[in-house]
Amino acid sequence: MTTAVLSDKKMKTFEEIESAVRSYSRGWPTVFEKAKGYKMWDTDGNEYIDFFAGAGTLNYGHNDDTMQEKMIEYIKNDGIIHSLDMGTTPRKEFLERYKEVILEPRNLDYKIMFPGPTGTNTVESALKIARKVTGRDTVISFTNAFHGMTIGSLSVTGNSFKRHGAGVPLHHSVSMPFDDYVDGQSSIAYLERFLEDSGSGVALPAAIILETVQGEGGINAASMEWLKEIENICRRWDILLIVDDVQAGNGRTGTYFSFEPAGIKPDVVCLSKSIGGVGLPMAITLIKSEYDQWGPGEHNGTFRGNNLAFIAATEALNRWETDDFAKEIQEKADFLSDSVKEIINKYPELNGTARGRGLMQGIAIDKEGLASEICAEAFNRGLIVETSGPSDEVVKFLPPLVIDKDGLAKGLEILEESIKAATAK
Amino acid sequence: MTTAVLSDKKMKTFEEIESAVRSYSRGWPTVFEKAKGYKMWDTDGNEYIDFFAGAGTLNYGHNDDTMQEKMIEYIKNDGIIHSLDMGTTPRKEFLERYKEVILEPRNLDYKIMFPGPTGTNTVESALKIARKVTGRDTVISFTNAFHGMTIGSLSVTGNSFKRHGAGVPLHHSVSMPFDDYVDGQSSIAYLERFLEDSGSGVALPAAIILETVQGEGGINAASMEWLKEIENICRRWDILLIVDDVQAGNGRTGTYFSFEPAGIKPDVVCLSKSIGGVGLPMAITLIKSEYDQWGPGEHNGTFRGNNLAFIAATEALNRWETDDFAKEIQEKADFLSDSVKEIINKYPELNGTARGRGLMQGIAIDKEGLASEICAEAFNRGLIVETSGPSDEVVKFLPPLVIDKDGLAKGLEILEESIKAATAK
Amino acid sequence: MTTAVLSDKKMKTFEEIESAVRSYSRGWPTVFEKAKGYKMWDTDGNEYIDFFAGAGTLNYGHNDDTMQEKMIEYIKNDGIIHSLDMGTTPRKEFLERYKEVILEPRNLDYKIMFPGPTGTNTVESALKIARKVTGRDTVISFTNAFHGMTIGSLSVTGNSFKRHGAGVPLHHSVSMPFDDYVDGQSSIAYLERFLEDSGSGVALPAAIILETVQGEGGINAASMEWLKEIENICRRWDILLIVDDVQAGNGRTGTYFSFEPAGIKPDVVCLSKSIGGVGLPMAITLIKSEYDQWGPGEHNGTFRGNNLAFIAATEALNRWETDDFAKEIQEKADFLSDSVKEIINKYPELNGTARGRGLMQGIAIDKEGLASEICAEAFNRGLIVETSGPSDEVVKFLPPLVIDKDGLAKGLEILEESIKAATAK
Amino acid sequence: MTTAVLSDKKMKTFEEIESAVRSYSRGWPTVFEKAKGYKMWDTDGNEYIDFFAGAGTLNYGHNDDTMQEKMIEYIKNDGIIHSLDMGTTPRKEFLERYKEVILEPRNLDYKIMFPGPTGTNTVESALKIARKVTGRDTVISFTNAFHGMTIGSLSVTGNSFKRHGAGVPLHHSVSMPFDDYVDGQSSIAYLERFLEDSGSGVALPAAIILETVQGEGGINAASMEWLKEIENICRRWDILLIVDDVQAGNGRTGTYFSFEPAGIKPDVVCLSKSIGGVGLPMAITLIKSEYDQWGPGEHNGTFRGNNLAFIAATEALNRWETDDFAKEIQEKADFLSDSVKEIINKYPELNGTARGRGLMQGIAIDKEGLASEICAEAFNRGLIVETSGPSDEVVKFLPPLVIDKDGLAKGLEILEESIKAATAK
Repeated sequence: MTTAVLSDKKMKTFEEIESAVRSYSRGWPTVFEKAKGYKMWDTDGNEYIDFFAGAGTLNYGHNDDTMQEKMIEYIKNDGIIHSLDMGTTPRKEFLERYKEVILEPRNLDYKIMFPGPTGTNTVESALKIARKVTGRDTVISFTNAFHGMTIGSLSVTGNSFKRHGAGVPLHHSVSMPFDDYVDGQSSIAYLERFLEDSGSGVALPAAIILETVQGEGGINAASMEWLKEIENICRRWDILLIVDDVQAGNGRTGTYFSFEPAGIKPDVVCLSKSIGGVGLPMAITLIKSEYDQWGPGEHNGTFRGNNLAFIAATEALNRWETDDFAKEIQEKADFLSDSVKEIINKYPELNGTARGRGLMQGIAIDKEGLASEICAEAFNRGLIVETSGPSDEVVKFLPPLVIDKDGLAKGLEILEESIKAATAK
Repeated sequence: MTTAVLSDKKMKTFEEIESAVRSYSRGWPTVFEKAKGYKMWDTDGNEYIDFFAGAGTLNYGHNDDTMQEKMIEYIKNDGIIHSLDMGTTPRKEFLERYKEVILEPRNLDYKIMFPGPTGTNTVESALKIARKVTGRDTVISFTNAFHGMTIGSLSVTGNSFKRHGAGVPLHHSVSMPFDDYVDGQSSIAYLERFLEDSGSGVALPAAIILETVQGEGGINAASMEWLKEIENICRRWDILLIVDDVQAGNGRTGTYFSFEPAGIKPDVVCLSKSIGGVGLPMAITLIKSEYDQWGPGEHNGTFRGNNLAFIAATEALNRWETDDFAKEIQEKADFLSDSVKEIINKYPELNGTARGRGLMQGIAIDKEGLASEICAEAFNRGLIVETSGPSDEVVKFLPPLVIDKDGLAKGLEILEESIKAATAK
Repeated sequence: MTTAVLSDKKMKTFEEIESAVRSYSRGWPTVFEKAKGYKMWDTDGNEYIDFFAGAGTLNYGHNDDTMQEKMIEYIKNDGIIHSLDMGTTPRKEFLERYKEVILEPRNLDYKIMFPGPTGTNTVESALKIARKVTGRDTVISFTNAFHGMTIGSLSVTGNSFKRHGAGVPLHHSVSMPFDDYVDGQSSIAYLERFLEDSGSGVALPAAIILETVQGEGGINAASMEWLKEIENICRRWDILLIVDDVQAGNGRTGTYFSFEPAGIKPDVVCLSKSIGGVGLPMAITLIKSEYDQWGPGEHNGTFRGNNLAFIAATEALNRWETDDFAKEIQEKADFLSDSVKEIINKYPELNGTARGRGLMQGIAIDKEGLASEICAEAFNRGLIVETSGPSDEVVKFLPPLVIDKDGLAKGLEILEESIKAATAK
Repeated sequence: MTTAVLSDKKMKTFEEIESAVRSYSRGWPTVFEKAKGYKMWDTDGNEYIDFFAGAGTLNYGHNDDTMQEKMIEYIKNDGIIHSLDMGTTPRKEFLERYKEVILEPRNLDYKIMFPGPTGTNTVESALKIARKVTGRDTVISFTNAFHGMTIGSLSVTGNSFKRHGAGVPLHHSVSMPFDDYVDGQSSIAYLERFLEDSGSGVALPAAIILETVQGEGGINAASMEWLKEIENICRRWDILLIVDDVQAGNGRTGTYFSFEPAGIKPDVVCLSKSIGGVGLPMAITLIKSEYDQWGPGEHNGTFRGNNLAFIAATEALNRWETDDFAKEIQEKADFLSDSVKEIINKYPELNGTARGRGLMQGIAIDKEGLASEICAEAFNRGLIVETSGPSDEVVKFLPPLVIDKDGLAKGLEILEESIKAATAK
């Protein structure tokens, strides 16, 4: 095929110079050059609709105009770019605005920690503080959890390929069933039994860590009841509840925090990905004041002060001053979930199941390899969409939250064509 | 003191909203606003000379004009900001230029991995690949090593406060004496004995990881002979040699890689901090081709594609096309080390010892607390300089490599005044 | 009470010279001097019926006449007492007789390993060989399992007090629900789900280790169906099945091995306690020939050759030449379980539940502390009986298998009196 | 060779039925039947001089007449054989006599713990109590240490073959150089430097565990100065000192405890092997009263009450009522060390070095495989002697302490013949 040959040539640099660990440039073998809103263009001038959004990093779309302006202005003024955790104007403004726009209206008393600019770093910091505060070492995580690739975060991650990559055994964690993991069995009953029985072999944990919607694990959305019961369990046994909202937070599920509809108040919240607004590396860890028992510098890192990211992050907060953005997301989410159901009904050969909530949805496809084939077909047709789940069995929809209905509709159209092509093989 | 009160007010936001883990904003209680070259300014208009350079992240100085232009141009053109490890124009250009300017002239056959944009992430990836390639789990690190704050990197870090912060025991690592750690005893003989004796209790390791100059550990510079002997040991026992050049690399010690004068060829090299040119988060792991045995995505991360950092990073490589920059650094390094010796002689009350090499130097001060007092006095006089070492006993000089001699001289003047003030107390 | 005072005086030596770790001499505060069959006598001449049998070590009763004769004869002839794993006459005879009487009639192809003379040692050896053979490190154990007190065995033990005593975190093990652990939920479905899902966070284990009747964990008897399903799981995923028959083996449940009625063939079987016949320390590990992949001396220990124990052990094997002994046990077991049911019905205030099978039975009592009080009353009345279970909630009956029905009846009579006394308080 | 064929036939049972893990029956391929004092006989009537003494278990020789009588009498009187840690007459007598004969005259305030009847069990109990008392987890052990084969003890054992057999990584331990491990370097200086430097990567340990003479590790005898310095280090940093006297204790080196000549008082002492007098499994852990902080049953085990062993153990204590036995051992030790020196001088082809002290001596032979060949030749000539050391490079002499000079001389004669035969090859 001509495309393949061209693409091969185009990808030579990556194939020859970059490490074999590279992954996305394999499934999407092209060189991207520009992006705006929910669209991307490669060096050949091809246009793509983005149903991927940097794995949830570009909730506000590519290259938001105002963020661009603010960043350019900041650079022009010789604003501090790198500051570790020194006091800087952008850090100050971000802290104040985050408290004002996000924390206070939700009646949340969190201290804000800058743990290094990646998701795995906020998770590592959350695990550390939970262990310090409680003096315990075990952390309970859930089946198909994904929390990051450094050893601390990997230890609470479910995926066996990723765990095996650690090269060392992973400890101090116990994997429990997520929500309705085993058909017809209550995961809450299991968890309670293990905790209440002093002979269960499971120690009282420092923390329970969870994603309300498991992104990498297959777009598994926990029910609000389950989340409430987990919080109850944490309160009853004096366990810290950590919500890893790296992927599901920042509005992805329709509210700023993904756990808001459950009415729970986690003790620690991990945020990264879209927190930086424009896609620059940034992460924060929210810690209930009473548990903010760090010594100065006890967890640190060189890139805790990515000020350009703070500039865009502060701009992004404006979206949350009113409820409008949340409503908008919800409307698009409804449209998306209706479409997903339609597709599942229309293509019974998929044996499809709808997954997720908000603008974090997916179709689990019960035929080996088919989900990947659909994504490959989609790429050829100008739609960026990837799989998730332990066997890559879920086609995952994570469009920028700012996408309009036309964009959604167009993307879903391409998806249908791709399904037809893939199932026709 | 009036300053203190003002400063307190200024720092209110950080004190009230930010986590207690914050550290630099304690020692330097002000809000920075602008920076250029080797200078910084706070919101009160005070000017500071920067002998800290973002802990080695700003080797090319703050806000290099060309980097600023390139970044602004890229943003204006809607260049892709965030791309995970997708193919993008800036990634392509960085890969090609890095091979051309850095690897080929040094006859180095490395694959380039993007492991996530922080130092600890490149270290975690290096440890993983060494364990995968060898099938062994132990890694030998050295006393006073610092490699990062996530659990994998912490396990090879020496500092007990930081290790304890892990909240869990740290495994799969053995700490060996760095160079001349114990007076009059050979650390090489010690290491060899443990390796050759099958009853030593130390298993054949997957890797030996080291910094050629230990930055956080007290600016301890290994001798070139010691580095060569370590490489020999690695070759004899088939152990991978990992050089963590996160702080000492990118020209900090006078050559692009800190290990060049030793004539060694590490199997894996970790780079971060100044690799991004302007201070944006970025890291790469260099892996000898034969050891690049990753599966696709076996180590990943959301922020592997910080394209704005790639733009500045590629620009920074221009500095290395000729030897001029290296020579320039060396001259300034000589000036700095002469000055350090002078100061040590002039102020015998310091019981000072010179440490380090290149523009990574320090004075170890044998009086408890004095190094910290000197740094505090320096801040009040407009010099940004910090301590390092297990007991904060070293005043550390890490000016931007682009500083001119006037800047160096002015900074050292302030340092002397600060020494006088601190010792007069 | 006069008895208490006397007893205190009697126990002075233990209180003053022995470590605080001592336990049985607290609940049974007397000094035992003689024992025969199912009876014991203390230095005050009090007689006790033994429903404890050395926690399952004295299945053949105290001081069997023939064993005594054989041991005395052996000592008189200057037989080798201690031999590590050298060849000796008693080891040779034991090996040959064990094969002839136990293994061959049951069509079992096991190699016999002498791992050190205790239960925890056979378990440690079983875990090691399973890890060696499979190259995997995780072992699945079950809630309320008890496998021993050394670190390897503790890691697969459920009890939190005992685990905590390790002083270090316990690794490489995953605790799964035993049989009907959670009411109305299938532990098999749960286990299967974790094994089949590559995202479950539970690695493919080297082995599954279990007791068919959990002695210390509360006399929980697994159903034969459950055992079969566990064996199926092991076969399907190529996992080694280890049955820890230290307490339930040697006829305790009515057959020589406790797993015989399930028709399963474990890959490794751990035996200790009554294997030595007369109560001397001894243990063996049975390993399927194909898995006997040890290097010489890879697991060793000083007391692998307790020849006096071999003498008694070989004598004990005579009991198993015909089915008579098994039938006898079964009859007594039926009598015991009828009696247990009667007692439960007669004393509803116990909220009692019958537990166990064979001559390994118990009554779980749903009132905090009552089981312990009953045992204390029983001691005062001349019956040696102890509790088990995570909250010491089970009164456990482990009489010597050679007890006659009169002995059983008399013991149960004392038990009833003790129940009356304890519930009257 | 006829012998070999016969021997093969003789060993059939062990080869066919016993596990491949068996070791001593390989090097000494015969079936032993009788033993008395320092002599053993096999089923073919061959006589052997025992320079092995059950690896230090038979300090009092085989089948001491009085011990035999006492044991037979006890059995005849239906004495309790097995008692867990219940109060029994023999336990009471042993406790009282041990205090009277051993502890009080040496002014030692230890509580006596019965930890299970093996060396590895006393070590596991020692590690547990040290971790509990200090709340720390690391234990420092030494190169070529051997402390046992269960996971806790293995973690402080040096031998790589044995460690690897664990099948899991071994943690919570740091291996430091034993005495003069590295030529010309002070192991004390290393240890101190690692402890005093908070950046060393070695945490403040719960305990330091050592053998004063490393038996399995190559008969390495620590100097008394080194032992004193280690005790000083323990006192300065509040670390518990554990002496594993399992092999070197019970008079082996000339005093009851091996550490007496150093004038140190360990916090915990591990004893097993010869503590049982006649070779029956038994172990005790001596714990300074202030550190005896166990909860009842926190470490337990089925065979803590081997009363037949207590009978022989108590009888053995009589040897220590006066100094005579110690003097006698010392005389024989002098004779042995003179002979060792003579042999080394006479056979320069051995490149021999004298090792050890008391009746725990050896010749390190600097030629691969030669030590094993000498032992094989010795067996054929009627001398039981084995190798030790990480490469089996040491011929080890551990005769029963009760051997007479004739026996010693005869054994050494055979040894010389064996050296001649082995070197002539």
